[in-house]
This record gives sequence, C-alpha cells and structure tokens, in this order.
Amino acid sequence: MMNCDAYKGRRVLITGGLGFIGSNIAQKLARDGARITIVDSLHPLYGGNLANVAEIRDEVTVHVDDYRNQSLMRPLVRDADIIFHLAGQVSYIDSTRIPFEDLDLNCRGTLQLLELCRELNPEVRVVFASSRLVLGKILRQPVREDHPTEPLSLYGVHKLAAEKYHRLYAAGYGMRTAILRITNPYGERQQLKHSKYSLPGWFMRLALEGKRITIFGDGSQLRDYVYATDLAYAFLAVGLSDAPPGELFNCGFGRSVAFREMAETVVRVLGKGTIEYGPWPANYERVETGDVNFDVGKLRGMTGWNPSVSLTEGIERMYRYFATRLPLYL
Amino acid sequence: MMNCDAYKGRRVLITGGLGFIGSNIAQKLARDGARITIVDSLHPLYGGNLANVAEIRDEVTVHVDDYRNQSLMRPLVRDADIIFHLAGQVSYIDSTRIPFEDLDLNCRGTLQLLELCRELNPEVRVVFASSRLVLGKILRQPVREDHPTEPLSLYGVHKLAAEKYHRLYAAGYGMRTAILRITNPYGERQQLKHSKYSLPGWFMRLALEGKRITIFGDGSQLRDYVYATDLAYAFLAVGLSDAPPGELFNCGFGRSVAFREMAETVVRVLGKGTIEYGPWPANYERVETGDVNFDVGKLRGMTGWNPSVSLTEGIERMYRYFATRLPLYL
Repeated sequence: MMNCDAYKGRRVLITGGLGFIGSNIAQKLARDGARITIVDSLHPLYGGNLANVAEIRDEVTVHVDDYRNQSLMRPLVRDADIIFHLAGQVSYIDSTRIPFEDLDLNCRGTLQLLELCRELNPEVRVVFASSRLVLGKILRQPVREDHPTEPLSLYGVHKLAAEKYHRLYAAGYGMRTAILRITNPYGERQQLKHSKYSLPGWFMRLALEGKRITIFGDGSQLRDYVYATDLAYAFLAVGLSDAPPGELFNCGFGRSVAFREMAETVVRVLGKGTIEYGPWPANYERVETGDVNFDVGKLRGMTGWNPSVSLTEGIERMYRYFATRLPLYL
Repeated sequence: MMNCDAYKGRRVLITGGLGFIGSNIAQKLARDGARITIVDSLHPLYGGNLANVAEIRDEVTVHVDDYRNQSLMRPLVRDADIIFHLAGQVSYIDSTRIPFEDLDLNCRGTLQLLELCRELNPEVRVVFASSRLVLGKILRQPVREDHPTEPLSLYGVHKLAAEKYHRLYAAGYGMRTAILRITNPYGERQQLKHSKYSLPGWFMRLALEGKRITIFGDGSQLRDYVYATDLAYAFLAVGLSDAPPGELFNCGFGRSVAFREMAETVVRVLGKGTIEYGPWPANYERVETGDVNFDVGKLRGMTGWNPSVSLTEGIERMYRYFATRLPLYL
C-alpha cells in the first residue's frame, strides 16, 4: 500500500509516542528506517508505556518529558521532517473531573506546538490525532467529515478546538497540517489499566482475568473499531501524502459492528470470559453518541490507505500480544 | 417589547460590564431597577471605560478586576440571578499576536466561570456574548445558527470553544446557559482608540478629526450592523426568556448593508469626512469572511426581541453621544 522506503532516513517526531497509537506508529517507522524521536510524559493516567517500544528501543530516541516543555521541544521541532502529534489528555470521562488540565494539555499544548512549528520549521508536516468525540450525538449516517460538531465532553470541545488550530494554521500560514478524526481504536499496546477508553482492551483484560464483562442496555449500538496497525498506516500515509494543508480525514475501519458483537468476539477468540447485561447508568444517555457509521472514503481516496484488519483478526492479534505481556499493561 | 419591571430587584452580574456592550446592558438594567454588579479589568487594549457608566455610577457596584480572579468571583457568582458574560479578549486581529492570552481570557476564563456556576449556583441564567467570527468564510446565505464553523482567527476558535462550553454545561448539567452570536455591533460607548474592531466607530472618529476614511476594495461586502441598544435589549430578552438551556441565537439587525454604505452614512450624518478607496492589504482575503446576511428569526421568534435602530438612526445617535465625549474614548 505504500512505498516502504518512503520513510527511510526521515526525521519523525512523535508526541505521545509511548502511548497506544503513537507507539504503533513508531513500530512501523522503525521497520521502515525512519529516524524517530519520541516525547512522552508517561503520565500515569494515560497509555504511555516503555514496554510499547521494547522491541525498537535502540532505534528510537525517547524523551520522558512533557510536550509542553518548550526548551525541550524547540530543537526537536526545528529538526523534524514530520510530526505526529498524539500527546494529550485522552479520556473523555476524566475531562469532566480535570477540566483545566484537559484544556492545558489538549489546547494550550497544541497551540504552543503549532506556534513553535510556525516559528522554527513552517514547512514541517504535522498530523494530528483527533477523535470522533468532537461530533457528539450522531445526527446523520454515514458520518462524513462535515458532520455537525456538538461535543458532549470537555475532551471533545478541546479536541475540536485543536482541530481548528490545525486548520487555521494551514489557512492562515500555509502550514502543512492534517487531522485524523479517529473512531474507536483498539489493539496491541493499548493500556488495560482501566475502562476509561477503548473497551475491547478492557474486555480482554476482564476475560483474561476470568471476570464478567458487563454490557449496558442490549449492546446494539454500532461502533467502528479500527485496529492499531491500520491506524498506524493511516498516519504514515497522511504524513507522506500531498493532501492540501489543513485537510481533515475520518479514520476508522469503515464498517460498523454492534458493541455486543465486539464483546462476543473477545470471549470467542479467547475461549474464556462471560457476558452479562445490565441497565445503563444514570445520565449515561448524556454522553452516549448513538450509532456510528463512519465514511472513510476520503482518506482511502486521497492517500490509498486501506484498512485490512477485521474485528476477529484484530482481537486475535491483540490476544497474541497481551497473552504474554499482560502484567506490563496493568 | 418587554415588561420593564421584569428586571426590578434582579441581581445581575456583568463580566466586561464597563465595555461597549456590557455597559449598554448596564444602562438599560439600571433604568429597570436591577441590582447590578460589574467586573471589568479595564485592560488598556479593550473597550472598558468608566465613562461608560458615568450616568449610573451610583446604581452599579464596580469591581475593577480580572474575571479570572476566583476569590473575587466566588461570592459574585453565588449571589447572581443572571450573568451576562462579555469579558474577554475582543480583537480577532490581536489574537494572532497574543495567542495564549486569547486562549486564557476567552477559554480558560469562561470554563472557570461555568465551573463556578456549576459549583455555587447551578440555577443561574448565563448569557454569553459570542461572535459571527466563529463562522469563518460564509458559505450559505442567509446565515442561520447551523452554519458551518471554520474560524479564520484564534479569536474565532476560542469563541467557538467557549460557545461549546455553554452548550455542554447545558446538555451535561442542565445549566441555563444561552449564547448570542453577534454580527457587527456598533454604537454609543464603543471604544474609538483603534481600528481593530467595530469600524463604524473608527470611521466616526476619523470623520470627527477631519481625516480620510480608507475603504479597501470597492466596499461592496455586506455587513449586518446592529446598534448598541438593540443588542442590550437582546441580552435582556434572552436573560428572562424560557429558551431551552444551551440555546444559540444569531444576533444582528437582520438586514445587511454594503460596507461602503456604512462609511457614506457616517460622512453624511456628520456632514464631514471624506472617503477614499485603496487596494486590499496583502493576505487580507485570508480573514475576509465574505458577505454576511444574518437570519435573526430564531431570536425574534423565541423572545419577542425586535431590533429597531436603522443604520442612519444608529449613526445619528452615536454621533450625539460622541460629539461631546470624544476625548473620553481615545
């Protein structure tokens, strides 16, 4: 799908590069011979984990530090060909509890990164990881990039503002930014510490530990689960594409399955675990977005990217990964 | 248009209440017998001016302080029936130069205000002053509340995020917020220090000083100029309305005129000044939004508000106001 030499020798900076998605990008890039620098604070609440780069530890330069640290970032931004920007507060649930930290990590930090790019390296390619949670309630199916944005969490508001920064710095300064609006990511290297994001991982942990998986309601809501390596390829594809500055792309598998089917797939693939059904918690409908059918045709069409990992294959690969590494991710 | 006793005895807090719009609201409220508290930092860049409340100085409690000062704000928020939130960085031009101040004043400050309301006074009515600049390029005419939002300035991004906060605190916590998305405000009590916002005032100053008014291009772009007192009535109407929490309203005169006509009206009403035409500055098209035809039917329909001050009448009233007070506004 992509010329494997295309990243050879490229200087790539990944903020949040020890996290779930960032580290999967790093794994691909290392195989392609890129020169990789990672900035990650290893904040205990989020998914940063040195185990995520264990196999490529000699091929990446890792700064365990906050991406808001300007003196750290200045030379790194200056020397990068491509920046994959994934650092941030990543839980929409926690954003309610820590509104100002969410604002600072997801907005001020992003604004500062773009300002540094503008000052030091205006030609750099920046690819930003956004989230379907900028949308809020789904009003139109399938969901295209122009779907209305009415976030139901501060996380969603701040991710939306960060998207707008990237579009503004493209429109106003011609900077080569791009945005991937990610559906429901899952897969190897995701954190399994809590249930606050990416439930396939949480369910796998419950099943591995012989605990019951609880589904609220009947589990019929549709979700678009996109596997870690497919996601990593999406970033790599956009990083090299000649898409116009500021372009926004939906990024998912492009096919939805019922939440219940995801849980059943975990139990089936692992051959353990049980599922029970319970009522929705109070007020849950306030953050429940409704069915999601993402149209990812724009990303396919403009970059040639083609996600290939089905839910069953994804759960299998994830199981193989975590079967021997579970303690590193708890 | 509104029961004049409706605000009698009401405790109203106005952030940015010494500024252009906030002080016009205070003037109306004082006449109606409200108990008015103003917080305004008198930041030299913005429009805060003690002259704006000279006539009602004994009827308002003024705190010359920053609305981000929590210890100041806690008791004021706790004791308010209605909050009109107008404090902020107000120049889209300056937002490029001071991105982090804009973020802090317009986003963090607003988030903090809403968090205080949630903690101390969740029943309070909050009416937020937003701006048409959240929209960016106008893509559809007439402009309704659901027009796409692609801001062309950091000011616009941060106002958009602040709008989303108000909608989120309504959807998530049932708070009684409302948003007025204001077109091109002008009128008595606006600052005349510089040309960075509200050009009718700037042009009036130039004419009063016998200087030439320069119009870029042919001045044919359409704008919706809404007069200070009509705006104040809009805030008062929404403050008392039973519009659902989080409601967003376009707020303009509802009729557009050419930019050139506005300038010509200033010269005609004042009987002085001259207009010349010049080329657009470089890159100006990057922030020029195109013609604006605002549909204000929703605000009319839901509150009974009815703007009445035509452009000619507005310029006449503004002239009467500034003719004797110009030095106080420079």
